[in-house]
Amino acid sequence: MDFEALFQGQIDALKTEGNYRVFADLERRCGAFPKVVNHGETGPSEVTVWCSNDYLGMGQHPSVVDAMVETARTCGTGAGGTRNISGTAHHHVTLERELADLHGKDDALLFSSGYVSNWASLGTLGSRLPGAVILSDALNHASMIEGMRHSRAEKAIWRHNDPEDLDRKLSAIDPARPKIVAFESVYSMDGDIAPIAEICDVAEAHGAMTYLDEVHAVGMYGPRGGGIAERDGVMDRVTLIEGTLGKAFGCFGGYITGSTALCDFIRSFSSGFIFTTALPPAVASAATASIRHLKSSGMERAKQRRQVARLRARLDALGIPHMDNPSHIIPVMIGDPNKCRMIADILMAEWGIYVQPINYPTVPKGTERLRFTPGPLHTDADIDHLATALNALWSRCALSRQVA
Amino acid sequence: MDFEALFQGQIDALKTEGNYRVFADLERRCGAFPKVVNHGETGPSEVTVWCSNDYLGMGQHPSVVDAMVETARTCGTGAGGTRNISGTAHHHVTLERELADLHGKDDALLFSSGYVSNWASLGTLGSRLPGAVILSDALNHASMIEGMRHSRAEKAIWRHNDPEDLDRKLSAIDPARPKIVAFESVYSMDGDIAPIAEICDVAEAHGAMTYLDEVHAVGMYGPRGGGIAERDGVMDRVTLIEGTLGKAFGCFGGYITGSTALCDFIRSFSSGFIFTTALPPAVASAATASIRHLKSSGMERAKQRRQVARLRARLDALGIPHMDNPSHIIPVMIGDPNKCRMIADILMAEWGIYVQPINYPTVPKGTERLRFTPGPLHTDADIDHLATALNALWSRCALSRQVA
Repeated sequence: MDFEALFQGQIDALKTEGNYRVFADLERRCGAFPKVVNHGETGPSEVTVWCSNDYLGMGQHPSVVDAMVETARTCGTGAGGTRNISGTAHHHVTLERELADLHGKDDALLFSSGYVSNWASLGTLGSRLPGAVILSDALNHASMIEGMRHSRAEKAIWRHNDPEDLDRKLSAIDPARPKIVAFESVYSMDGDIAPIAEICDVAEAHGAMTYLDEVHAVGMYGPRGGGIAERDGVMDRVTLIEGTLGKAFGCFGGYITGSTALCDFIRSFSSGFIFTTALPPAVASAATASIRHLKSSGMERAKQRRQVARLRARLDALGIPHMDNPSHIIPVMIGDPNKCRMIADILMAEWGIYVQPINYPTVPKGTERLRFTPGPLHTDADIDHLATALNALWSRCALSRQVA
Repeated sequence: MDFEALFQGQIDALKTEGNYRVFADLERRCGAFPKVVNHGETGPSEVTVWCSNDYLGMGQHPSVVDAMVETARTCGTGAGGTRNISGTAHHHVTLERELADLHGKDDALLFSSGYVSNWASLGTLGSRLPGAVILSDALNHASMIEGMRHSRAEKAIWRHNDPEDLDRKLSAIDPARPKIVAFESVYSMDGDIAPIAEICDVAEAHGAMTYLDEVHAVGMYGPRGGGIAERDGVMDRVTLIEGTLGKAFGCFGGYITGSTALCDFIRSFSSGFIFTTALPPAVASAATASIRHLKSSGMERAKQRRQVARLRARLDALGIPHMDNPSHIIPVMIGDPNKCRMIADILMAEWGIYVQPINYPTVPKGTERLRFTPGPLHTDADIDHLATALNALWSRCALSRQVA
């Protein structure tokens, strides 16, 4: 059996269809972000990152860095065990309290990552609630899909962001069965936002629990950064809110929040929670500092909104088509994997602009795109430079423009 | 639908059977480990940890702490994205090279955790190699089991550490199908060690690839800490070696190593790798420092072996029965979840000794145990104190002794 040939054959197929991924090798420098050093083939060069999920630049915020440094100095680099076997640090307990408070819930539970929190929580709910049915928004993230698949619970898919279709799907299910409505607030690739209140109306009418992924919203929406559910005043109506420490909070790790019994249930039965090493206390400490800062400071959020609006206006003025949405994510559609990569390569090589081409499987084939995420640390000059570069490229590559 | 009652009912059942878990809330202090502060119900107190997977105390090693601190100061606290979308830091690339070198392989690939590395890699291999069969050791870790389950590939279970049974199981499978032999080197709960060379003999005879989990061995066995496969001189015969940065290396994260095509294959197709935020550069940096240290320093390993032998000798002299094995793990069998917890509670409250009771689902019901992991930082006095405590408890609780 020639395993090497089996592996290589599938890699070659990816290359042929333009979906082979090459990672940009970057070096962040505190104080300079979103400018980073790109360790490219032709040697290191400075580029501006336009596709980071460190949406507010909190990964270099002095209070967040100080918290990581101080905890590393006092407590070391690792937790040394699973949460159950010597791995629970006081910093985990503190962070879980902070997260419960952020979302107005009784309790919270940390996971290795947002991916694991979705996979483990939906997997546990779907498999341990007898007869459960999971009602999944059609565009849910891979981690939720894998969790549902893992649970082997029955799944019903409702039309993206469509409460009426959810209502129809729920009506078709035996009222005696436990039902879980799973959806996101901000969808990361299109940047659209769920009508959470209407979804809760429908779920409540059918006695279903709600599972909301806020990973692209926590830190950035709501007066304390509690996400879209906080902004909309509906946190108390959502049964479980899932989030991440790895995007706007600038750190690493995932979590869920909910009732004490719900968190205890996931804590007690989830393989992906039980059998894995706890997060480094220094990471937990940094995340706590970041959440606390964004609970009281609205400056980063306000500046982000300003820069997002500014880039949108510049693109509109130049007729560069981008997907309209109410979030901080600006998708510029290309629709072809090779063209998408080529444009990104030129932006990097000639303009010092780094935006990763987003190809399959992250988005469906034919919807390849550049996805810009302006943040409070992008200057007006950065935005002007990006607009100039895109304008030149649109002319050079004869890409279609859109009349305003 | 009363979800709260559904959750609470299953938690209550756990409590009734003695398997409800209460986490010890600990605070490590650099330089003092394995002594930590236990934030218990009666206030903080100092205890000695006897069940850490930070087996060599590298989590407080100055070069490891310095690496985390320096990288946090220069690069910040988070990677800011998936490996593909702005999240690859130069520190990840450096660490992957270090890991490939450690195991004598061409390449390596980092994951959020050891759990995720097993789940994602076995899941991808099993699902994407057409007609694959996974031959799994009967005692493989939950993360491997979940990965195999996820892949939906056919699975055949062979008797634990029994190459002859593996041979029988392999003989029963169509030679034209891709076969993956999945096993561990050191089994964490019994501490026994796989006969890797004999397993490779059998796998090679059948044209099967080998998948070896070395999470409880890396850093601790072999002249450079490459694990049991290095110690036995068989690294080149194993197709894929999986390991963790969260145990003997004292940090966080998991990895695989293997051929360039193999790593590229998992990198390109694994959902659990693609759709998740990269490890913090500061964690990668700390792990690199730890691996480099243990590649050249044998002192920690030698001291660990000495203290393991010392505790075993003390237990033998007192007739306290422990499971015989050739590793650093000393399981003292109790066989009842409530008794196991009671003994652990007394050790913590009266003797300042922290050893987590290991109950179901970590071990099968009826095999509940205390699992001691002596390390180079446990002093001879610590060992004397532990032996005295166990001796007193064995008398007080009328536990059975074993004549040497």
